[in-house]
Amino acid sequence: MSIGVTAKSEDYGRWYTDVITKAQLADYGPVKGTMVIRPYGFSLWESVKSAFDNRFKATGHVNAYFPLFIPKSFLSKEAEHVAGFAKECAVVTHHRLMTNPDGEGLVVDPESALEEEVVVRPTSETVIWAMYKKWIQSYRDLPLLINQWVNVVRWEMRTRLFLRTTEFLWQEGHTAHATAEEAEEEAKKILEIYREVAENVMAIPVFTGLKTDAEKFAGAEHTYCIEAMMSDCRALQAGTSHNLGQNFAKAFDVTFQTEDNREEHVYATSWGVSTRLIGAIVMVHGDDKGLRLPPRIAPHQVVVVPIGKSEEEVNSVLEYLTGTLEAVQAEGVRCYVDDRDGVTPGFKFNEWEMKGVPVRLEVGSRDMEQNVVTLVRRDSGEKASVPKDKIGEEIPRLLDEIQKSLYNQAKTFRDEHTLTVESYDEFKSIIEETSGFVKCGWDGDPKTEAAIQEETKATIRCIPFEQQVDDLSCVYSGKPAKYQVVFGKAY
Amino acid sequence: MSIGVTAKSEDYGRWYTDVITKAQLADYGPVKGTMVIRPYGFSLWESVKSAFDNRFKATGHVNAYFPLFIPKSFLSKEAEHVAGFAKECAVVTHHRLMTNPDGEGLVVDPESALEEEVVVRPTSETVIWAMYKKWIQSYRDLPLLINQWVNVVRWEMRTRLFLRTTEFLWQEGHTAHATAEEAEEEAKKILEIYREVAENVMAIPVFTGLKTDAEKFAGAEHTYCIEAMMSDCRALQAGTSHNLGQNFAKAFDVTFQTEDNREEHVYATSWGVSTRLIGAIVMVHGDDKGLRLPPRIAPHQVVVVPIGKSEEEVNSVLEYLTGTLEAVQAEGVRCYVDDRDGVTPGFKFNEWEMKGVPVRLEVGSRDMEQNVVTLVRRDSGEKASVPKDKIGEEIPRLLDEIQKSLYNQAKTFRDEHTLTVESYDEFKSIIEETSGFVKCGWDGDPKTEAAIQEETKATIRCIPFEQQVDDLSCVYSGKPAKYQVVFGKAY
Repeated sequence: MSIGVTAKSEDYGRWYTDVITKAQLADYGPVKGTMVIRPYGFSLWESVKSAFDNRFKATGHVNAYFPLFIPKSFLSKEAEHVAGFAKECAVVTHHRLMTNPDGEGLVVDPESALEEEVVVRPTSETVIWAMYKKWIQSYRDLPLLINQWVNVVRWEMRTRLFLRTTEFLWQEGHTAHATAEEAEEEAKKILEIYREVAENVMAIPVFTGLKTDAEKFAGAEHTYCIEAMMSDCRALQAGTSHNLGQNFAKAFDVTFQTEDNREEHVYATSWGVSTRLIGAIVMVHGDDKGLRLPPRIAPHQVVVVPIGKSEEEVNSVLEYLTGTLEAVQAEGVRCYVDDRDGVTPGFKFNEWEMKGVPVRLEVGSRDMEQNVVTLVRRDSGEKASVPKDKIGEEIPRLLDEIQKSLYNQAKTFRDEHTLTVESYDEFKSIIEETSGFVKCGWDGDPKTEAAIQEETKATIRCIPFEQQVDDLSCVYSGKPAKYQVVFGKAY
Repeated sequence: MSIGVTAKSEDYGRWYTDVITKAQLADYGPVKGTMVIRPYGFSLWESVKSAFDNRFKATGHVNAYFPLFIPKSFLSKEAEHVAGFAKECAVVTHHRLMTNPDGEGLVVDPESALEEEVVVRPTSETVIWAMYKKWIQSYRDLPLLINQWVNVVRWEMRTRLFLRTTEFLWQEGHTAHATAEEAEEEAKKILEIYREVAENVMAIPVFTGLKTDAEKFAGAEHTYCIEAMMSDCRALQAGTSHNLGQNFAKAFDVTFQTEDNREEHVYATSWGVSTRLIGAIVMVHGDDKGLRLPPRIAPHQVVVVPIGKSEEEVNSVLEYLTGTLEAVQAEGVRCYVDDRDGVTPGFKFNEWEMKGVPVRLEVGSRDMEQNVVTLVRRDSGEKASVPKDKIGEEIPRLLDEIQKSLYNQAKTFRDEHTLTVESYDEFKSIIEETSGFVKCGWDGDPKTEAAIQEETKATIRCIPFEQQVDDLSCVYSGKPAKYQVVFGKAY
């Protein structure tokens, strides 16, 4: 691994890409805009995925799998949905290649044209609601609480590893309910799961609230979101939960028989988080040495580096740790022993710092003499000498502390860069100079929102649940504010 | 749920489809040849998946994710591979839809044609080896032991739920090694994992061995397989592990520096099992009442059905079981309590029999008087009255017994329908009458294999590892046999 990454302060975009490629989280795929998630990155995704999946299952959701291919005609059934996705769809038109009759290689066999072209799912509402029409007859079939973990495709022109790629991995939940209230409760329940995992597992503080109509999902009544600040002060939409009302049920004519024998359209939600969360983890916690991973999602929580010049010395360190490491693992700690030879301890230190392992456990001859080990925190760089027989308690405690510390650092940073303003001049200077978040009044008019975006490129990231709107004026029009909102420049 | 399925003996194909749809394992997707895996079926797949995934990880493999889209040109790099997959590829040619200028709905935007068409992966060797070229430089980078759980697409004309669908889910392992011996060892190690999970987890006995050149994977040096017999006596290829030699390394020019500083092409394997295993579970264990699930993969191992006419009676049953069920769950048993009202116990019995839950636990007023519960085995229909305070021990024992019994039944069935023959007349009459397996000598000539297939539709399913070839003659040519092989008609 080559040493070091571009400094964050020098070029944030290059720093981000450097960290991802050098920590071996991901690489570019051969088709433009596609990404390979490498084992270390995928292991991180597996941690994040299982945190969500456990919580979905604990709240009564089940997983399923719906097809990748959607008939082209389905996309036009829900009016707003068409507008939202038709422009970025991968379209399958043929089902066979043949050897080139005029030269080398393979060409599309023109005889294999499909009767109706199919679209690679950009999201699965349409195919799922076509199935729900078959499955839902009566109130007894409700609620239907289905989730799937799949790949989706949106043909993006400007892509960026994890944040915006032609193909990405995500979960999409699609639920059906008998009443509007239940659907609303579901959309909010999921948002709370998103918030809780973002904050408690990924150590990423988020604003929770509503999207404006301009920013909501194509086909939703309203969209709830968790919104995070990256370390360049830009906003990242980290998860969304949509109350779809009866829009898709009407588009696909999905009705059910109520308990009192009426026929009614079903109420729906959908919600998703994606591999872009991995990008958020990089940007929120990373530094100029590379990744810093919150212990709860780190593939390795502790990396053990034996210090020794010969194989014999290394072996004596490993022997010294026998029993002790097992005690740490018995506490549920994920330890990895880096006993590679032909690689110096210094090289290993750099590599595991790049990969963001929360704690490094070093042992050399002096440690052995004193019956201690040296623990080094990735978040702060602090070193401590700890009696060998105490690390079964000390390491779990330290991991908890690092988890909290990463969250607190991110929260302090976000709060320091979230300013409440009353004038539009103030607003503009903050957005231009720091790209931070701005809290201010908004008159609720989409024209105001569009004008501000036009002039400053900032968008309303979220209408927070907690509102302090009394006596507030719109920062742009001066009219009484309908909401206090959070503006920012988004990824 | 409508009652009953077509009898197996009446129409095997309809029985199979009935079981899958009525047990709610899967449904047909809107695009021809695609399938929806419903929550109950997906939960079964999650069990199977985790059995494999745990074993892959325990043997040093890691998961990753490679892109869905492969440049068309990649497919032609490995000569045999082209021939194998080019004819059934979904091809993406455009990346945008537009509203129809001449009428309703959406049409493909002709302006959005891709410069080079991309293929939806039928398997990922080509894209993975393009990446391995970047990642592998030295012997220190080897072995590379990567797996992925993904969807793949092969455009099939005649499809069947789980067994052959346009899109299916699978895992594909792709490993790179420094020596031919290591690659060979890996291919065999994986086959042993496949065998062990098939037999010990899914309760499906399999033959293990080699595929003939005619049946091997397009691009492999040789292919190992596990081959199972379905309850209509047909063969199902249940998993394959390929030694790819240096074929893909040469096609993609992947070399590494050896320890003694030579430049050499890497050695490779690939291996996969897919959702067709769910079809195998249905066919091997199912009966005229529906599914019978081996306890180790059953989403619910025990279903509790309280017998009572009123809500009060049902509640008193649930109260009676309080503490007892927890004791069963504490043993790691997956219990599900079916306390739906408005549905008779008889209806519930049928439904859970259809869904193949291994043990039904019934409790009615007589059971309560005697301080017992009634346990009913799905595999045999046997009923037993068991003291309530004994079920914490009894149920795990019973589940073990059912697991073994399902395996033994399947093994007896297969062995009874696997006949060793010496004459071609015998061979033909067995294949025609029972479609069972036939063990016989083969001279090793692909022409013999082709002639037999032409005449009988039977193919060599596997050249078993255990060979008894002394004095054996080829069943067709009469020449000395090179191998003893297993013939059968395949799905």
